[in-house]
Amino acid sequence: MALLVVGSVALDSLQTPFGVREDVLGGSATYFSAAASFFAPVRVVAVVGEDFPVEHVEFLRGRGVDLAGLERRPGRTFRWSGRYEFDLNQAHTLDTQLNVFADFRPKLPEEFRDSSHVFLGNIDPELQLRVLDQVRAPRIVAADTMNFWITSRRPALLEVLKRVDLLFVNDAEARQLAGEHNIVRAARTILALGPRALVVKRGEYGALFFSGEDVFASSAYPLAELFDPTGAGDSFAGGFMGYLARSGSLDASAMRRAMVVGSVVASFAVERFGLDRLREIGPEEIRARYAEFRRLAHFDDLDVDVLSGVPRG
Amino acid sequence: MALLVVGSVALDSLQTPFGVREDVLGGSATYFSAAASFFAPVRVVAVVGEDFPVEHVEFLRGRGVDLAGLERRPGRTFRWSGRYEFDLNQAHTLDTQLNVFADFRPKLPEEFRDSSHVFLGNIDPELQLRVLDQVRAPRIVAADTMNFWITSRRPALLEVLKRVDLLFVNDAEARQLAGEHNIVRAARTILALGPRALVVKRGEYGALFFSGEDVFASSAYPLAELFDPTGAGDSFAGGFMGYLARSGSLDASAMRRAMVVGSVVASFAVERFGLDRLREIGPEEIRARYAEFRRLAHFDDLDVDVLSGVPRG
Repeated sequence: MALLVVGSVALDSLQTPFGVREDVLGGSATYFSAAASFFAPVRVVAVVGEDFPVEHVEFLRGRGVDLAGLERRPGRTFRWSGRYEFDLNQAHTLDTQLNVFADFRPKLPEEFRDSSHVFLGNIDPELQLRVLDQVRAPRIVAADTMNFWITSRRPALLEVLKRVDLLFVNDAEARQLAGEHNIVRAARTILALGPRALVVKRGEYGALFFSGEDVFASSAYPLAELFDPTGAGDSFAGGFMGYLARSGSLDASAMRRAMVVGSVVASFAVERFGLDRLREIGPEEIRARYAEFRRLAHFDDLDVDVLSGVPRG
Repeated sequence: MALLVVGSVALDSLQTPFGVREDVLGGSATYFSAAASFFAPVRVVAVVGEDFPVEHVEFLRGRGVDLAGLERRPGRTFRWSGRYEFDLNQAHTLDTQLNVFADFRPKLPEEFRDSSHVFLGNIDPELQLRVLDQVRAPRIVAADTMNFWITSRRPALLEVLKRVDLLFVNDAEARQLAGEHNIVRAARTILALGPRALVVKRGEYGALFFSGEDVFASSAYPLAELFDPTGAGDSFAGGFMGYLARSGSLDASAMRRAMVVGSVVASFAVERFGLDRLREIGPEEIRARYAEFRRLAHFDDLDVDVLSGVPRG
């Protein structure tokens, strides 16, 4: 099993109620890779500028990430600057400098084309299609997208949806994409557009998985320390896809475990700034929090007789 | 086991994107009673006016509700009129006519004073205290409250919190009461005020249960048909407390089942206007949806070796 991600590698400047960080390692492909690397080796296709610090390259390589697809081009690295208010729910973009990312044309190294598991990070759907044209026979392709592409690149995005197995969106994006407020009906509409499964991320409220008539709800772990939501969605997807690549299964039970693994990794990611927490933790922390998620969600069957003899409505 | 509720019995006028209803049966004690009556007999203390239709009295009596504490006084019944926007998340109050409810002074019939399970609906905390003075040795007392009382009757509310076992609030109320945005820290603050357990209702996102270090998250069932959220919180509390009264247990496992039973009953309540859906369903529907909640939340243990041999952070 080989896991490929295509997305951004960036330098983020973050303002949260708890502090400020300048030019920290960020980007969808970065968070995804760091999260997935707990489970499986990851192959990255992305672009950085001449100013991209070598320590970041070494960090990713140290996580077993294959950087044969990380292009270094003349110019500056993609920079994003964002601010979070007290409720931490929504990122307010202060500044976006595409820099070398403006001309990103993902090109897969020959040895990446046999990847079995593919994640198309949140980039222009035209580029997502270009990646799909370069992979041979993946077992599962997942994609992320956002409001900007939903409104400005709808035809290309619909083409992507026809060709992916799994879509990751947040609830606002699901509603916008489907043109339907009710999340169950929105999910049905999106599944009718192509993907055989849909993950709806709901931030502090967890995530929903839809496939056919199957629905699974994973709760987010209630955290007393929530510092920086940047990268939570990509960490979720990284944990999810990393788990699938490692387990080798795509059955319903594996998909549910992948949802929880994604939630586990995302719950760590938001506990510190940027990637700081993902740099600290190891298998034991992940295993322990997975067990906490089990306790968080566990309840027993209803007692046999508790409804006997009540008045019929 | 005997379950007592004190709260409002009202006539509601509802506007939702799906239609309009005038003067339908409503009120916190009504929804609570209808929900709890699937599990246990309920005793109601409330007040209605001369205009309160006898058919509503008969409906409640038909559900095994003991109406010895339902006072009928000269004047009109409490009326509430509300409107829901397309997202159905928040009720916008159009009009409130307290009518006979303005002078409500809850007085428990002598035979109600031995109630083992008590629910103090969302009324003035001064009145909640008056009820507590009249019950003898309840096994569990739960209370609901709202933003209005949190700001305007804080000292009395804090007195209530010292004397109840369980508080039901929504997430905005929990944050307001604790003066703390993070929901885990807000829960800790509230538990330090007295109650040994806290239920935080989160509407379409489910509910959290906090007690000591124990946390349980129940998801709301994703509904394709959501018509009218009026009474969802009281239906949740009714299912919760009705289940506890019926089961006789207050252990951690019973509290978790109570959370799910509350979620189940609330999920039915919102499927039609007012009490319409709760009038239709019976034990089989409740049992079946409980099983659906089990499927919704179920996931397996993590595979043993999935995290072996990954790079240590």
